[in-house]
Amino acid sequence: MNHAADRIWAEMHRKNSVLVVGLDPDPARFPASLLSEQDAPLNDVADAIEAFGRIVIDAVADHAVAVKPQLAYYERYGSLGIRALERTIRYAHARKVLVVNDAKRGDIGPTSAAYAQAYLAGDMVTVNPYLGRDGYMPFVEEAGRHGRGLFILLKTSNSSSADLQDVQLANGEPMYVHLAKDLNRLAADTAGGCGYSFVGAVVGATFPQEAELLRRLLPHTLFLVPGFGAQGGKAEDLRGFFDARGGGALISSSRGILYAYMQDEPDWRELTRAEVYSSIRLAALTAKEQVNEVRR
Amino acid sequence: MNHAADRIWAEMHRKNSVLVVGLDPDPARFPASLLSEQDAPLNDVADAIEAFGRIVIDAVADHAVAVKPQLAYYERYGSLGIRALERTIRYAHARKVLVVNDAKRGDIGPTSAAYAQAYLAGDMVTVNPYLGRDGYMPFVEEAGRHGRGLFILLKTSNSSSADLQDVQLANGEPMYVHLAKDLNRLAADTAGGCGYSFVGAVVGATFPQEAELLRRLLPHTLFLVPGFGAQGGKAEDLRGFFDARGGGALISSSRGILYAYMQDEPDWRELTRAEVYSSIRLAALTAKEQVNEVRR
Repeated sequence: MNHAADRIWAEMHRKNSVLVVGLDPDPARFPASLLSEQDAPLNDVADAIEAFGRIVIDAVADHAVAVKPQLAYYERYGSLGIRALERTIRYAHARKVLVVNDAKRGDIGPTSAAYAQAYLAGDMVTVNPYLGRDGYMPFVEEAGRHGRGLFILLKTSNSSSADLQDVQLANGEPMYVHLAKDLNRLAADTAGGCGYSFVGAVVGATFPQEAELLRRLLPHTLFLVPGFGAQGGKAEDLRGFFDARGGGALISSSRGILYAYMQDEPDWRELTRAEVYSSIRLAALTAKEQVNEVRR
Repeated sequence: MNHAADRIWAEMHRKNSVLVVGLDPDPARFPASLLSEQDAPLNDVADAIEAFGRIVIDAVADHAVAVKPQLAYYERYGSLGIRALERTIRYAHARKVLVVNDAKRGDIGPTSAAYAQAYLAGDMVTVNPYLGRDGYMPFVEEAGRHGRGLFILLKTSNSSSADLQDVQLANGEPMYVHLAKDLNRLAADTAGGCGYSFVGAVVGATFPQEAELLRRLLPHTLFLVPGFGAQGGKAEDLRGFFDARGGGALISSSRGILYAYMQDEPDWRELTRAEVYSSIRLAALTAKEQVNEVRR
């Protein structure tokens, strides 16, 4: 199946899930069993984030359609961090888990083409639209050629997203609606058999009203919905993100699943790797069921 | 000198230059002397882009205030590419050349903080403002703490930059003017002894009229000006980017300097490393002088 949205659609049905688990590996939140020593040299930190990634992928493989590595958490360890990311992507694919590279890249023409080559090593990539069409079209073209997909930042989950994204235009619309209309034309031209395009959009879980409007405006656009869980988005607020079939949106949670043990276990620093696995697996199952509840 | 704009200012005077040379290493444009073999494995490609970076830095050290690695050109070679970037940054610093990481990063709060840690390994970094204040403030804070700087994308050099950046708002202003007013308050609060802030802005050489307006609106904001040379920005169009002292703007050229030999030498694939060095050095000197001509 060489259309990314059709591949996602098939995985959603196979796993009965629209959950995406964000990979935000933060060694300061790792139990000692994941860190080989105090004051570990950089090599060991990179090994630890890779080991953590494997545990997460194993724990969520049955419940999550995809994992979403947040690239900043790898890039801050330089080339060793990127090596850990490369290995994590390969491991996810071996376990039949799709990968959304949360890179938020965007640049001008030839540079965007170079980024597209770099980050379509996963299945999908997030893209920043601030540079305009010639910033994101190289991603669209490269993705189309290789059966990959992208999610363009439309209305992000953070509170300052209003600064630029909600600014009212001369025609009375907020900026994100103006952008949505451009994206809708692109999505209609690139839809697969499931009705959705491989050019999706990021719409934060923290903005349910905006999402209802966007769902109507964008019938062919798959939403990637961050901000569920730790960032404050609640399951009951997610209804408006879905289409009538309970599809059309992938719901992403990161810290609420990865670090559930920090809430649940006062002595979390002492947890074994097996206990970390169990905590993450349970949190992913719970999140999947909470989300499934509202999309029926 | 722990204020990044003051450091840039001092270097501009020491070298009598406002030139920045973009590092867009593209092995398809390298002479055979830089590539160890046909169909080189990835390791050799990464070595070649590192070697190219050293030649460029040596060739431009007397004429350019900074080099500007375009991160996509390194990232597309994965962890080996990032290792080449890390070594290139160290080499530039050893040769007393400042480094602007052209990363165009931007994310929400905690993730932006992780990026800020990653990319302030150089002296300055470019930042995408689409996520709003809580996307770029972590960069501002981290930069202020460590004597580093950032350039926020304001009006980029590509033709589609109009799609979002020029959209007319309800108050009659284009988006980039709206953003500029926010940035001006930030710049006034963070100016150094030279009068400029360590929070600068990217303004493309291809938009001289917009630049004149922005120069008036932003008296404390240092401009990073890409698009001079290969992208079509001409020296005579640069006057409006400078302040009355001939400062306030760093002019960046990439392919026009790096690959001048492709224009000048039909047999460029046969050039020795020494000839590549001479071509880049001459092109940088020429660009410096062209720019100095218009800032007097």
